[in-house]
Amino acid sequence: MAGNCNTSAGAGPCELNRDVCQLKELVRSQGKQLGRLVRHMKMGCKKPPRESTLKGLNPCLRCLQPDVLYHLGMDTGTMNFPKIFGDVRFVCMGGTPERMERFAHMIMKELGLKLHPATKLRNMAEDGHRFALYKVGPVLCASHGMGCPSISILLHELLKMMHHAKCQDPVFIRIGTCGGIGIEPGTVAITSEALDGMLHPYHETIVQGKVVQHCSKLDQCLTQELLSLANPCEDEFDTVVGKTVCTNDFYEGQTRLDGAFCDYTNPSKNAYLQGLQGQGVINFDMESTAFAALTSRAGVRSAVVSITIINRMEGDQVLASPESLSEWEKRPQELVARYIRKAMLGQDEDSDTDEQEDVPPCAGADIEN
Amino acid sequence: MAGNCNTSAGAGPCELNRDVCQLKELVRSQGKQLGRLVRHMKMGCKKPPRESTLKGLNPCLRCLQPDVLYHLGMDTGTMNFPKIFGDVRFVCMGGTPERMERFAHMIMKELGLKLHPATKLRNMAEDGHRFALYKVGPVLCASHGMGCPSISILLHELLKMMHHAKCQDPVFIRIGTCGGIGIEPGTVAITSEALDGMLHPYHETIVQGKVVQHCSKLDQCLTQELLSLANPCEDEFDTVVGKTVCTNDFYEGQTRLDGAFCDYTNPSKNAYLQGLQGQGVINFDMESTAFAALTSRAGVRSAVVSITIINRMEGDQVLASPESLSEWEKRPQELVARYIRKAMLGQDEDSDTDEQEDVPPCAGADIEN
Repeated sequence: MAGNCNTSAGAGPCELNRDVCQLKELVRSQGKQLGRLVRHMKMGCKKPPRESTLKGLNPCLRCLQPDVLYHLGMDTGTMNFPKIFGDVRFVCMGGTPERMERFAHMIMKELGLKLHPATKLRNMAEDGHRFALYKVGPVLCASHGMGCPSISILLHELLKMMHHAKCQDPVFIRIGTCGGIGIEPGTVAITSEALDGMLHPYHETIVQGKVVQHCSKLDQCLTQELLSLANPCEDEFDTVVGKTVCTNDFYEGQTRLDGAFCDYTNPSKNAYLQGLQGQGVINFDMESTAFAALTSRAGVRSAVVSITIINRMEGDQVLASPESLSEWEKRPQELVARYIRKAMLGQDEDSDTDEQEDVPPCAGADIEN
Repeated sequence: MAGNCNTSAGAGPCELNRDVCQLKELVRSQGKQLGRLVRHMKMGCKKPPRESTLKGLNPCLRCLQPDVLYHLGMDTGTMNFPKIFGDVRFVCMGGTPERMERFAHMIMKELGLKLHPATKLRNMAEDGHRFALYKVGPVLCASHGMGCPSISILLHELLKMMHHAKCQDPVFIRIGTCGGIGIEPGTVAITSEALDGMLHPYHETIVQGKVVQHCSKLDQCLTQELLSLANPCEDEFDTVVGKTVCTNDFYEGQTRLDGAFCDYTNPSKNAYLQGLQGQGVINFDMESTAFAALTSRAGVRSAVVSITIINRMEGDQVLASPESLSEWEKRPQELVARYIRKAMLGQDEDSDTDEQEDVPPCAGADIEN
């Protein structure tokens, strides 16, 4: 399953490549630390007023008192957003509530966080009845439902949350499931570019009766960072990077022959899929363009990492066993966990020089660090 | 709240209108009964092979053995669809699992069905982790999530279910929540026509890289039947009929000023909403075009009945109390329950002459009629 590489004595290409990636990341991390030190020396003890680092947001937000995040069942009037969410650095999202709850538990373990024996993780968006939202230290884990409209509602409200909570440089990662094009089920697919059904790199919406297009740009450095954390020599799965076609329909939109309706033939389906493959498309999903466009508009770094549950060149129906699906879903989660763990360790080093007294390192009062 | 009407001695216009509607419905019901009797006499004891009454479905469906309804967590190989779902006559759907569970309990009471004391309603789509699905006698109650892509997945799989189960003339009704345009919160809005964000009466998808439009037609007779069951003299709420604009985004798509992004002004928002109102639009939702198009393609009668939770001419944020929202959600459910009760009573009369031994009148083994 995993790619071949030279593992004999001496450094093989895989190891060298990993070393280079790790060194680059270290240089980047040290550069940031130096920058912070220089800023700190220039500013003296005077702290700049802290606002979130998000850009281009709605200027009306400051006038909303309270701001109601209706679908999350929260509002700024009854909840202290900076206190509760101010430490969020990673926002991870996936389709179903159950998967994101499992991810929350997994990341809790990975970061060495523990719940008090008398407590359990709570779905913080329970009152909204739409999404699930778990918080584990600096990581938010949210379910987004299916399709661009659903994830766009979640993103509007999470971006508003980041703004009100004055979050600093949050990174958004979608951990999805997808249909692969020419890649085996069980493969982790990282999206290099999110395209719509017409293969355009944007997310199209209609605003006041006019068509508006927003560039569906993902962060290429983050994509490469995530890829560098795959370990083709040891992982039991392959990790690949390529374009994702985001559709508004699971059946006809993804040229399946098993929907309630089907006005095309098997040969035209195959020709279409082969055409996509020829253009570097590795998978279909139903959320990546909206996810990329909305995060990119806010100046937020974001990436899409999905698990392939079917190879669409070989069939349409998802026939993998529940056991396989359960095993596979852990793979992109593992990759994202490695990224978060590494970024957190980097932050621990930084925090010696960069004081952040007003935001506790672990906001969940019931979580013991 | 309720509209004025003449309730003095003698028949007022409201009562006359109701009488006319009820008589028309009776004539229709008797006509169907007569037709069945004539067919029965012509056929003698020979029963025609029963297939579902759905039209225009994918011809490949018969080759799928099994057919996996992935997002419902069901397949035709391990589940006897005709036995379990063959008696379904009404498919009701709404956004959240909790609301549809409450509706299932309400309709159970309305139809005089009872659960065995040792059982409770089960979410039949639990294994799919995406939707909730409850069955109460001939009524399916499903949650559809948010947005056209989400409801389109559910509809593909429910239409396939109806096909495999050989259902006869199922009626699909969406019981939604919506933002009203010039109508008060708490008003029941029945959709006469579902329009997209460009005010076109169709649902647009992309199939194999080509734009495809399907007419988003709702059943006008069903709409009028539902309206005739509103009782403006006694109901504590108004029921109105008008056009619905279906958007792919809750914030910018519905010209809200409180989204994470907002590139327009309050005056342009007001002008846009007033323009919609001038064209007979009474509300926004996020599912009606896909719902109308997919049901209409299958030759299935369908309607959209929603509760208005905000008047968008007056604001953007949903500020109604949980108590009001809870009270209001019952209103469209009540209207739909009246329709189902009436249709069921009609069927009880029919069933004296129309044998259906192979499908029990109440498929849920644990439900006592």
